[in-house]
Amino acid sequence: MVEPIRVFVTGGTFDKEYDELTGRLFFKDTHLPEMLRLARCRIPVSVRALMMVDSLDMTDADRRLVVESCRSAAEGRIVVTHGTDTMAETARALHAASLGKTVVLTGAMVPYAFGSSDGLFNLGSALSFAQALPPGVYVAMNGRVFPGDRVRKNKESGIFEEG
Amino acid sequence: MVEPIRVFVTGGTFDKEYDELTGRLFFKDTHLPEMLRLARCRIPVSVRALMMVDSLDMTDADRRLVVESCRSAAEGRIVVTHGTDTMAETARALHAASLGKTVVLTGAMVPYAFGSSDGLFNLGSALSFAQALPPGVYVAMNGRVFPGDRVRKNKESGIFEEG
Amino acid sequence: MVEPIRVFVTGGTFDKEYDELTGRLFFKDTHLPEMLRLARCRIPVSVRALMMVDSLDMTDADRRLVVESCRSAAEGRIVVTHGTDTMAETARALHAASLGKTVVLTGAMVPYAFGSSDGLFNLGSALSFAQALPPGVYVAMNGRVFPGDRVRKNKESGIFEEG
Amino acid sequence: MVEPIRVFVTGGTFDKEYDELTGRLFFKDTHLPEMLRLARCRIPVSVRALMMVDSLDMTDADRRLVVESCRSAAEGRIVVTHGTDTMAETARALHAASLGKTVVLTGAMVPYAFGSSDGLFNLGSALSFAQALPPGVYVAMNGRVFPGDRVRKNKESGIFEEG
Repeated sequence: MVEPIRVFVTGGTFDKEYDELTGRLFFKDTHLPEMLRLARCRIPVSVRALMMVDSLDMTDADRRLVVESCRSAAEGRIVVTHGTDTMAETARALHAASLGKTVVLTGAMVPYAFGSSDGLFNLGSALSFAQALPPGVYVAMNGRVFPGDRVRKNKESGIFEEG
Repeated sequence: MVEPIRVFVTGGTFDKEYDELTGRLFFKDTHLPEMLRLARCRIPVSVRALMMVDSLDMTDADRRLVVESCRSAAEGRIVVTHGTDTMAETARALHAASLGKTVVLTGAMVPYAFGSSDGLFNLGSALSFAQALPPGVYVAMNGRVFPGDRVRKNKESGIFEEG
Repeated sequence: MVEPIRVFVTGGTFDKEYDELTGRLFFKDTHLPEMLRLARCRIPVSVRALMMVDSLDMTDADRRLVVESCRSAAEGRIVVTHGTDTMAETARALHAASLGKTVVLTGAMVPYAFGSSDGLFNLGSALSFAQALPPGVYVAMNGRVFPGDRVRKNKESGIFEEG
Repeated sequence: MVEPIRVFVTGGTFDKEYDELTGRLFFKDTHLPEMLRLARCRIPVSVRALMMVDSLDMTDADRRLVVESCRSAAEGRIVVTHGTDTMAETARALHAASLGKTVVLTGAMVPYAFGSSDGLFNLGSALSFAQALPPGVYVAMNGRVFPGDRVRKNKESGIFEEG
């Protein structure tokens, strides 16, 4: 028996697309279903988009919605896709909520729709840590996993670090 | 501190390429370094190609080489890339060797060099399970993880199952 | 006013796909509609699959069907997608038929479904030569264009040459 | 004998990349050499980057450099890669210069580095029209070709039109 996993989508680099008319990046639909299809994912995953925002634009109310959605979800194992700029902040909010569930935040350095994205790798990683780790909040990026209350993004290098 | 991971490459669908002259699939170099670069992988991973074979052509001697390479590796956490057809057989051989290490076998349903491969997802998954799971042998494919001594590939559906 | 172009699909490397169950290359549907969508093609193109075969398996009857389809098409400008191995042979058959139309054969060294295909480039090239060249039969591959009665594929290098 | 083609790069959507640190699009190196390799291009092409700019930022001096570079090039057949927003303006400047050469401007609706670009198709098209058309200035986009003095980009639809 495989435990089902809930994926909450919040937007972030992961889901950005190129607008042919304006030449700007924007959000349309989430790519999660397409990514799970490409991954031939054999675990029961249900995807729900909570918002589609750049994480720099995420408000306290948005962050509360993420926390409450994780709390009220039927599943005990959850992945949250999130922009990298404030991922650590949302991780701390989730950690503070003491949900008693395994929640893994992940994202991408490059949009999935672009040729050279790390998104599919990070999604595989997050779904795996979500299955294997005990209750708690984690950030899974580029192969590493960090405790949700002790992680930050190094603004200069773009790399996540413990701290 | 992040524990280093050893990746042993054996070939399989993962690494197949298209030969423009003959129109056939063949092996050249492993794509692992390129995949780790795309993944912006931040864990110390050292890759070593043991062989480049279709897993249907893997001999008992090949399988012994995989087991002995895992045994003598300095690392306690190992990922083995492998063709899917006999991945379960190699997993059983590794299980029988009782190495006391975490060994995760993975592969792909479609070559990484092709547009629609599950390879990058599976690699992210395998590297994550290799970090999170206790010593033992596992097969990580398409989001799921199986104990190395109780897994088989369903020949008709192409899907891995417990059993 | 833009003259409409007819595209006849015959299969070839262009349209080969990877069978996940058998690990072999095979034909399913043509990728032409998807390629034209990606190209954001703004000329009226109507696609018709005549057959889906490896060009080494193309019979005299198949070749007659290609010639007769070109003859009876309403359009005066035609692109034929074709396997590279016997493309020159079909070009000569079309040349011998003296159709009084502009017919451009093209194909790919690597299947479109794979990451590194020349297919989209060749399609752009063939549709352009089909618009710009006077009636006659031509082979357009990898940027070059050859007269249909004086072209051959160099078996060793895989490159098309005049001769 | 195949006549050599000169490609002048000016930037534009074609060559935009994603900056992982800032999340913005920017210019680094041109992708033309990589695209020609993927195309397995068999015509002698020499690439020279004149500038790497968004065509909305192109000045009169930039435009004069494009015209003079085309004039002084040894080749009689030239492709210019260009942003779409002011491609028609540069085409008119080249037309007014009466160079007596075949000059084809092309670009892309989506950056080549992104998964869903029309760039490779347009490059194949431009290199083909550059070989087949008589001296004059042309715009080749998405399968169509327009005379350089009678073309404009429809700002609302993003599509090039005669006029």
